[in-house]
Parts: sequence; structure tokens; C-alpha cells
Amino acid sequence: MKAFVYHGPKNMSLDQVPNPVIQRPTDAIVRVTTSTICGTDKHIRNGGLPEVEAGRVIGHEFCGEVVEIGAGVNKFKKGDNVAVSCITQCMECYYCKRGIYSRCENGSWIFGYKINGCQADYVRVPYADSGMYLIPDSLADEDVLFVGDILSTGYFGAENGSIQPGDTVAVFGSGPVGMCAMATARLWGPARIVAVDIDESRLEFAIKQGWADYGLNPQKVDVTQALKDYTSGRGADVTIEANGFEPTFKGAIAGVRPGGTVSVIGVFEKPQILEMQNLWIQNITLKMGLVKANHIPELIDLIKEGKLNMKPLITHTIPLSQVAEGYDIFEQRRDNAIKVVLKADA
Amino acid sequence: MKAFVYHGPKNMSLDQVPNPVIQRPTDAIVRVTTSTICGTDKHIRNGGLPEVEAGRVIGHEFCGEVVEIGAGVNKFKKGDNVAVSCITQCMECYYCKRGIYSRCENGSWIFGYKINGCQADYVRVPYADSGMYLIPDSLADEDVLFVGDILSTGYFGAENGSIQPGDTVAVFGSGPVGMCAMATARLWGPARIVAVDIDESRLEFAIKQGWADYGLNPQKVDVTQALKDYTSGRGADVTIEANGFEPTFKGAIAGVRPGGTVSVIGVFEKPQILEMQNLWIQNITLKMGLVKANHIPELIDLIKEGKLNMKPLITHTIPLSQVAEGYDIFEQRRDNAIKVVLKADA
Amino acid sequence: MKAFVYHGPKNMSLDQVPNPVIQRPTDAIVRVTTSTICGTDKHIRNGGLPEVEAGRVIGHEFCGEVVEIGAGVNKFKKGDNVAVSCITQCMECYYCKRGIYSRCENGSWIFGYKINGCQADYVRVPYADSGMYLIPDSLADEDVLFVGDILSTGYFGAENGSIQPGDTVAVFGSGPVGMCAMATARLWGPARIVAVDIDESRLEFAIKQGWADYGLNPQKVDVTQALKDYTSGRGADVTIEANGFEPTFKGAIAGVRPGGTVSVIGVFEKPQILEMQNLWIQNITLKMGLVKANHIPELIDLIKEGKLNMKPLITHTIPLSQVAEGYDIFEQRRDNAIKVVLKADA
Amino acid sequence: MKAFVYHGPKNMSLDQVPNPVIQRPTDAIVRVTTSTICGTDKHIRNGGLPEVEAGRVIGHEFCGEVVEIGAGVNKFKKGDNVAVSCITQCMECYYCKRGIYSRCENGSWIFGYKINGCQADYVRVPYADSGMYLIPDSLADEDVLFVGDILSTGYFGAENGSIQPGDTVAVFGSGPVGMCAMATARLWGPARIVAVDIDESRLEFAIKQGWADYGLNPQKVDVTQALKDYTSGRGADVTIEANGFEPTFKGAIAGVRPGGTVSVIGVFEKPQILEMQNLWIQNITLKMGLVKANHIPELIDLIKEGKLNMKPLITHTIPLSQVAEGYDIFEQRRDNAIKVVLKADA
Repeated sequence: MKAFVYHGPKNMSLDQVPNPVIQRPTDAIVRVTTSTICGTDKHIRNGGLPEVEAGRVIGHEFCGEVVEIGAGVNKFKKGDNVAVSCITQCMECYYCKRGIYSRCENGSWIFGYKINGCQADYVRVPYADSGMYLIPDSLADEDVLFVGDILSTGYFGAENGSIQPGDTVAVFGSGPVGMCAMATARLWGPARIVAVDIDESRLEFAIKQGWADYGLNPQKVDVTQALKDYTSGRGADVTIEANGFEPTFKGAIAGVRPGGTVSVIGVFEKPQILEMQNLWIQNITLKMGLVKANHIPELIDLIKEGKLNMKPLITHTIPLSQVAEGYDIFEQRRDNAIKVVLKADA
Repeated sequence: MKAFVYHGPKNMSLDQVPNPVIQRPTDAIVRVTTSTICGTDKHIRNGGLPEVEAGRVIGHEFCGEVVEIGAGVNKFKKGDNVAVSCITQCMECYYCKRGIYSRCENGSWIFGYKINGCQADYVRVPYADSGMYLIPDSLADEDVLFVGDILSTGYFGAENGSIQPGDTVAVFGSGPVGMCAMATARLWGPARIVAVDIDESRLEFAIKQGWADYGLNPQKVDVTQALKDYTSGRGADVTIEANGFEPTFKGAIAGVRPGGTVSVIGVFEKPQILEMQNLWIQNITLKMGLVKANHIPELIDLIKEGKLNMKPLITHTIPLSQVAEGYDIFEQRRDNAIKVVLKADA
Repeated sequence: MKAFVYHGPKNMSLDQVPNPVIQRPTDAIVRVTTSTICGTDKHIRNGGLPEVEAGRVIGHEFCGEVVEIGAGVNKFKKGDNVAVSCITQCMECYYCKRGIYSRCENGSWIFGYKINGCQADYVRVPYADSGMYLIPDSLADEDVLFVGDILSTGYFGAENGSIQPGDTVAVFGSGPVGMCAMATARLWGPARIVAVDIDESRLEFAIKQGWADYGLNPQKVDVTQALKDYTSGRGADVTIEANGFEPTFKGAIAGVRPGGTVSVIGVFEKPQILEMQNLWIQNITLKMGLVKANHIPELIDLIKEGKLNMKPLITHTIPLSQVAEGYDIFEQRRDNAIKVVLKADA
Repeated sequence: MKAFVYHGPKNMSLDQVPNPVIQRPTDAIVRVTTSTICGTDKHIRNGGLPEVEAGRVIGHEFCGEVVEIGAGVNKFKKGDNVAVSCITQCMECYYCKRGIYSRCENGSWIFGYKINGCQADYVRVPYADSGMYLIPDSLADEDVLFVGDILSTGYFGAENGSIQPGDTVAVFGSGPVGMCAMATARLWGPARIVAVDIDESRLEFAIKQGWADYGLNPQKVDVTQALKDYTSGRGADVTIEANGFEPTFKGAIAGVRPGGTVSVIGVFEKPQILEMQNLWIQNITLKMGLVKANHIPELIDLIKEGKLNMKPLITHTIPLSQVAEGYDIFEQRRDNAIKVVLKADA
């Protein structure tokens, strides 16, 4: 089959590799009908995650058709169309029993990282019963494509914010994950969602889609002060960091009110300073983490009922056979690219 | 001043009575600019609350202008336009310190019940600092009129439901309070809100306003089964009883899934049967109570930001001088009356 | 093997039956080393649960030694000593994914009810990975024997009470489950735990063991008033119903303060009256349900550290071969019997 | 009257100053019967809080007798014996209405800091109704002395930890506040509480008092590894930082398991490093803040019922007239001093 394979930093290629096979009774084999290129894939391509071994098939956000199931798979059958979680969960370890699937001792994020991923014709899905979700007949792959990773990640960031109805929520970083955080933050009824980014076009896009109510560009305004102006001088009730760099980390902490919550979903490469001499008296909560992906059925139901629609994130759709070009489009943000989607070749 | 006074069952009249005066330093006197007739007022009129004493001025949902403040009032000044909570809260008793203002040992619901109310030119507001809320300049009385009672009651019912994003919520009873419960249930991001009522026009109205997604008429469909059909056979995650009678109480309990929550905000006159021989194994939670009214600032902010709009409930507006006719309109549901609003006479 | 078999109302006998065998890869076969007679078993014996089929081996609270595992069992091996949950959980259905194991669509309470149970030499344990818990080397069967049913049930009742540090908790019914509720209620730091029962010796026993601080006998005192006397006139913050009959149900509701929680773990055979005309304004929460058994590892750890000790409940220990007499001792409360334990015959 | 007055760094003296008087109707004047020297007072004495103005009477943890009340004080009368919160709360501002009294816009920590404090014969208590708590007849000052500051602070740290029954809790720093955190952490039923400190005698003391189960000295053992050894390799479920310096901050973060909570109650003078490149994937929660002091009635009730006893912290008791020597004893930890208590002179 075709698969996009990592051979080392700056060295990926679309190769012919053997089809995956069932290795354990709880596995399924899925024909990938639709997948994406994710920000983490860029990292891998550029050598930022050296623990990825040469020969690894990349990709972890996808939908597909079940083509084979192991003897221990009970909930799915051949022909089912499924969205798949990027988080593999065994349901039996300490963390799975507590719903922290991101820390599954036998799984966690492994697709396109520690086992072969989805930028391929076929992929093996371990613990298929717990990681796959049936796509309702009324929906297409593109409708639910992001539930397996970025939509769940945005949701996780919003959920960690403990947003209350009437709150002011500021999201620092308006990339695909940040926009998913905004769209899902809406589910907790905030009075206002404020997008923060230096890319003005993304602020406008988020507002146009109804995900954000206001946009703030730190190159033009004092974001901390602007958030106070929205909130009788207090600051945002909840800030969400969706970028992984110092300016957004600092901004998220400076922007929250005393007693509020800072929810971090950005992926960080460096240590950050916490001004504890000021913060200890601010009564804030700082949460962080890798997506638990434990609300995918609810997200699919919300999409089905028209309450969530992340399809506008898809700016480019290309066949898997052109995946290499897809990476270029995505990395260079060519034509305002937000998400690049890969379709199975006909 | 003019005031609508209770003299006994079926005996209310618009009388001339002395203006209210400051009795304690924490009191304020408010000129009532806009008030409503509430379902409870009907009860009183019909003698259903015999503890109301003859001579009592009726009414408890209103906005007005501060005309005088006691020496202990710190947050308001003469001329302020305010929405007022129907729940009087001292902020110092056991229950107030725990946010259960409905059980305030020195207040609770007393307006138009145990002290004089707002269907009058003026009203005395005890503990003014804690029970009054400034109306933002951009809003009119009618925008925030319901925060003091029915919108807070609906919110309380929704909040007690512990609604999670993606849930299915069914509201039994589509009167003004039920519709407020629907509109505020939306703040917790359910996948679907189902209105239940035998009055088809109210179901349509609730759907048209965007408060409900679906409507069910128990005279036409099996509501319990219909809720299971929406939820893969399980039943609603949350049901809200907003009526106070046996059929809706039974319906709310029959309609909830195992592990779900039944939130009761209806005012009951009779005992109800709980089929504990079946329910004990259903793992449900049953919550009930009188509105806490502890999120009025957030509700006003949501209204200001266009996230909540309950003005469509106002079907009739008349001057205070015609209050008696207003009761007739309201009781007879004349011209599909939902809420009848009383304006200060010019 | 020997097994205690239900043949119809008032007709159980210790029979020779075939040994259980692995039926599915996720099964284990356990040699029962220690088991108990539970209140529900009495019910079955007396024909109170007619859905139990003739030929069923009874019993659902036990420890044992793993003697065989299916191919899909990963966490256990032959020779392991385990405590077993009375709740069978598949970990994949809607309810298991939400931790409500009592509603598992492929399990729930089935041992000694819908499948063969543990009053036998051997028992088949479905979904062994999720329902079995390793017994630490430092502990004996008797130390952890109750984690699989009554201790988890008591914990569930206490957890549902949402007890806060400093609360007053009243437990209505001081049988084995009620005492487990008292002992675990202590884990949330209440200021006082009040046992309520008409059996004075059980009140004394509960206080002597340190599970309760005070005892109230409804035949001697006005329990509602006594609870108010403990709490400045308010009533208990939390009441736990652990009996399943009208007097304790009524008592638990009458005894709770406004805004408090009534947690029901009694098994009811009859409907109950809810005085909604008074209760709607009391802001109480009523929770009920079948044990989730989702904190067994924590309970075992608490026992290991000496923070919980339920062994005093064991008043009688007899060999399995005398199980019929054990039922008599238990039903007649002979010699103040609380729990009768069955040991494997040598 | 006598009062211990700050005149500048290293310059405090017991002076004669005018008695305090009622300034606002909500004030009370209290005769100080028992007070303490707190760690923060040391800071002030040494010039560490330069915002303290010369002439300020120091001290904020105390009990006393009400000798005068303002016209707006409703809950207390002359002669009442009261414990007083170190946090002044107006009950009307944004933060008070949400129970975050530490951020009260008209109060917060002000005693002995921004207004005159309690190391004096008399003290003025603003908002007396909300900041004073009646001492039960059965208790002495010393029983409840710490509820106003360090016991509430320890409780706040434990509460922020979201401890669940069966958890492993590690407290970094075994000073008076750390020991209060241990004693109150017990209220949430952890399986084990681990005290961490380099002062071996304090570890022993905390264990002897039953506040901790184990002690770890970082100069002797690898604390992170030891915590993993207690928890099957995972780390503590909750860590509490009660010191305010880099080693304990680092230790608390290193010691917590993935998905756990770090609760910071130490007072920091310097920024700290957060290793976000490792932490982002650890799913931890970091909470911090100044004591809310919102559970003082519950703490008093727990003390009254014998569930909490912090009196062993009192190692030295001297008359107010010897307060200067008390500071020396406290700072030098003379005779293993933990808390130095000041009694009114006869």
C-alpha cells in the first residue's frame, strides 16, 4: 500500500509498504478514507521529535472504513465507517479507569509516532472497541474528521477552563486548535469569547465563523488591559493557551482575573517563568495536558444536531498521493491554509 | 401612591396607599418603572397562599429607579436604574454565606408576599446592596426584566440539571418559566433541548425562538419513548419539571436515563408518588428548590452581549393603572398571553 | 464441585454441580477461598427475586485464587489472590465509559443472580481484568472481603451524599451496609456521624467501632428534632438511607436541612410518598442507586494503611459445607450475627 | 493601651497608643485575649513588606471579647467571645459574592498590615458580622486560636488539592502552616499523608500528632522516588507546597503523578521555573492563593467534636507585655518553638 514514511529529519516520502495486519484480537484494520496533516506532523517532519523511528508511517487524525476486525472486537463490523481517536486507550490501566486516556499505560498518543499512522491506504487500530466511533449515516467524514484530535483538544482546553455561563474567555493563539477551543468554549455559555493572535486574518475568520466574539492583536493593543476593559477591570475569567510559546503563555497568565483559570493546551519546547512572587496571591488555577479525548460521542452528536461545525477549517483537500505537497501548503500557510485534508485515492 | 392590594381571595384592587419609607439603613426606595404579573401572583389572587395578609401590596418581578437610599447602602445612589431580585438576601446568615439565598433567614422570597411588593408606584427594597443590580446603559428595563425571577428560576432549574455538553435535555412544561429553563439550558451546550407541553402553540413558539430544538405533545406521542428514540434508547440525560403537577412530575422521572438528573422547579401543591421499587436501581438524582438568584450579574452580561434574549415572552404591555385587567389577560391566556408587563403611568 | 443452588422459594441446597469453565477469552476461573451471605441472598432464598432461575448458584461477595485465565485476560495470572467486584463491567458500553458500572449493558449485578455465583468451590468471573483486584501480600481475605459489595455500597452512599468537612451526617439503618456507610462517610471529614436504628445494640456497636459518633433510637427520641439540636436547628447536612423501608425513607427526608442531600442506598420493594408540597421549597437533592463499585483499589489501599477496618462486622465464620446453617444464623440474627462468612472447606 | 508597633525594618516596640474606636456602623471593638506571632509578622519585622507604614500595630491571628459594636452589627453583642478571621470580608463585592474573601475589594488581609492589628490590648474589627465567629462555651481561646489564619490556610491548601479518599498526599514544608495542611488533609480521607522537611524533629512531631503517616527528609532520601514507591510508581495524587521557596516548589511538582494536583500555599518572594516542555503532557493542575477563610464555622465545629486539635502547635505562651521576646523565641526557634502565643496581661 501507499504510506507517507518518516526516514529522518526533513526526509519523508510516499512509499510502498506492506499492508498492516491484525496483531492482537482487539485490533481492527481500517481503510483510511480521509485524514489530515496536523501541526505535530510538521514537528516530526522537521526532526523536532527525534524519538520517532525511521520507517514510521506518519499521521493520527482520520476517518475510515473497517475492513477487518480481530476476534476480540465486539462493537464494530466490516464496512462500518468510523472516526478514530488519536489517543489509544486500553480501558483497563490505572489512568484509563479514571478517564485520563492520554496517560493510558498501554496506549496514549501512539499513531504516527510509536506505531504506524494514517497517512496511508490502511492503518491498524489497537483497542478498536474503545478508540473508534461510528459515523452517523447523515454525516460525511469531513463533518467529524477533527473529533479524533484537534476538536477534542480544543474541547479539553475549554473543559479544563471550568467555564461558567456568563464568563469572559480569552483564547491565546488562533490556529486550528485555538479555533476548536473557541468553538467548544461556546458550549459552556460564556458571555464573550475573545480570540488573540497576531494574524489579523485569523481573528476575522474566527469571528466570522461565530467561534469568537472579539479579536485582539497584541501588536496593536494591550491585551491585558483590553480584557480588563471587557470585565469591569478584573480580567478574563478563563484564558486558554493554544500556542506553546512564551508570549502566549505570559499573555494567558497576565490576562486572567484573580480566582480564574489558565488552561494550557499548547505544546511547549521550553521552560517558562512563573512570577510566583505576584501570582501566589492571585488565587489562580493553571491546568495543562494532553487531550483526553473522552467526549467524542458527545462531539459527534453536537455536530449531527448542527450545534458544532468545524468544516470551515478545511481550506485544502488533496489526494493522499499528493501528501508531500500538502505538507508544503500547510507549513507555508499557502492561500491562508488552515487545515489540509488528504482523501483516499480513487 | 397607587398599589395593587390583596384584600382576601378573589379580592384585589388598585388602591391609594402611603408611600414606602426607609426602615433600616440597608433599605432603598425604588420607583417601579416596569413590573410583571407572575404565576405566583395568580395563586395569591385566587387565595392559594392564605398566609398572605390582607392589605399586602402584590408583585415581585421588577425594575426601577432608585429614589432614596439608607445610610448603610454603599453600592447605589439616587437615580440608578436597577433590576431587583425577587429573593431578599442578608449576606450574613448561614444560608447566604453558602449562596443559598432562597433560604436566607432574614429574607428569601418576601416581596409581595410577606412585605409589600412592586405592583405599585414605589417599593422598599431591604438589603439593597445585595438585591439590586445596575442596568447597563445599553439596555432597557424590558431586556433585563426577568432576571429577578423567572429567568433566574429557569437558570436555577438548568443549573441543577448538571447539563453536560452534548446532553439531551427535556423540559416538561412550556410556560414562561419552562421557556426560561430552555433558553438557559442552552448555556451548557446540550445537543438537543426538547420542549414538552400539551399546548402546541407554545411548543412552536419555543422552537421558533431558538430555545428548544424539538417539541413533544404528550397528547399525541409517547414522550418517554420519543426521548429514548433521540438517545439510542436511553432517555434524556436531564429532565426539568417546570409545572408543578403530577403528569409533568411523572413524565420527568419516566423520561430520564439511568444515571441522569431530574431538576424540579415547579411549585407543587400536592404530594407525589416516587416508584422507589423501580427507581432505586436507576441511579438518578432528583433536585428541587426555590430559585437562588445568585447569577443575576452573569445573566445581565449575557443579555448585554446578545447571548440571551427573553423579550419575546412579553406579549402584553399595559400601564399599572390597568393592572386588574392585566390579571384577566394573564389568567385567561387572552391573545396567547405569555407575560403581561406593567409600566409606570406617565 | 459443591455449590449452594436455588431451586425455588425456600428451597436451596448444597449440591454437586459441574465446575465452571472459561466461556469467553476475557473470563477467569477463581477458586473461592472466602465468601459471604448477603442480605440480597436472603431475599432470593425467600423468593423475593422471582427472576432468579432454578438451578442458579447463589452468592456475589467473595475473594479467591485465580486458577485459570482466558486468552484475553492481561492483568492476572494463575495463583493470584483476588477480591472480586459484585458488579460485572465490560468497560466498553455507554455506562462503563462514564464509570456507572452498575448500569453496564453487558454486566451490572449478575453473580448469583443471572449467572452462577460464589457460594461454591469455583466461580467463573467474566471481564476478569476489570472486575478483579489483587489482594496485597500484607492482607488476608477477611481484610478486603467486603470491598466487592457492602463496603463499596456504603462508600457509594457516602459519596452520593457529597459530604463536606464539618458536616453532620445521619445514617438511617445500622445494618452491615449502614455501618459501611458510616465508616466510609468518615473519609469526607464530617464533624459528626449519627447512627439511627431501633436496635440499640447495633447503635452501641457502631459507636464502639468508631464508625458513628452518636446513636439515635426512633423508638426513644424524636430523630428529626435531635438532628436539629446537633445543628443549630437546621437538620443534618446529609442523610443516608440504608434500609429500604418507609420509616427510614421518611426519616431521611425529614432529617435533612434545606439545601442538603438525601442519599438512598436501601433496596426498596414499594413506592414511597414525596411530600412535594413542602419539599419543593427545601432545595434538597435526592440521590439513589445501585453501587458503582468504582473505587475498590482506593478502598483496598485505605484498608492496607489501617484507615478502614470492617473486619469487626464478621461475627460468624463457617465452612462452605455448612452454608445452609449460615443462612439460618444470618436470618435469625443468632448471637447478634452481623455478617456470616463462608470459608472454603479444607 | 499597649500595642506592638512597627516603626521600620528591625524596629518594633511595645508602645502606648490610643484605644481603637468604632469608625463605621459595621465595626466592632474587641479586647484581645489571645493572639499569636505569625510567620508573616517576622517578614514585616525584618522589613520584607515595605508597604507596611510606620506606626502600624502588628498582628492578625487572635481571639477576644467584644466590648463595643457599631449600629450595623447584628450578630454579636458586648461580652461575646470570638475568633476573628485574618481576612476582612465585605460580603458585597464581586469576590465576596463568589466566596473568594481573600480578594475582597474592601478588605482581604489588612489586619496588622494596612490597618492596626491584634498584638495590642484592643483592636477594631471591620465588617464584624462577617469576620467574627462565636467561640462555643465548651472551648477555650487556644482551641480555636488558629482558625482565623493558619488552620484556615492549611485547610485552603488541602481543599485546593481536591483530595479524594484513598489518595496519597505529600506536604512539602512542615512548619505550622504545613502541619495545619496535613491535619486538614486528613478530612478528605487520604490513604497516606507524607510530611517532607529537612527538620527531622518536625517530621517526627507531625507523625506523633497523627497529622502525617510518614516523613521524608530530602537530605536523606530521594523524595520523588519515595513517593513513587508509595504509589506503584506513579507519584503522589496531591502535593501541597507550604514553604515558598524553590526546593519545595520543585519538589511538589516533581512529586505529583500525571493527572494530579499541586496546591501552593507558600508565600513566594521570587519567580519560579516551570518545566513546561515536560509538564504540558503531565496533565497536572497547579493551584495557588491566599487563604479564603470561608470554612471557619466548620473548623470550629470539628474542633468542638474532637476531630481536629491543633493545640499541640503551641509551644510557648507569654504575656503581651513580653511580645518582643516572643519574636526572638519564634525567629530563633528557641526550644523547638513552633507557635508563640500572646495572652492579655492580667
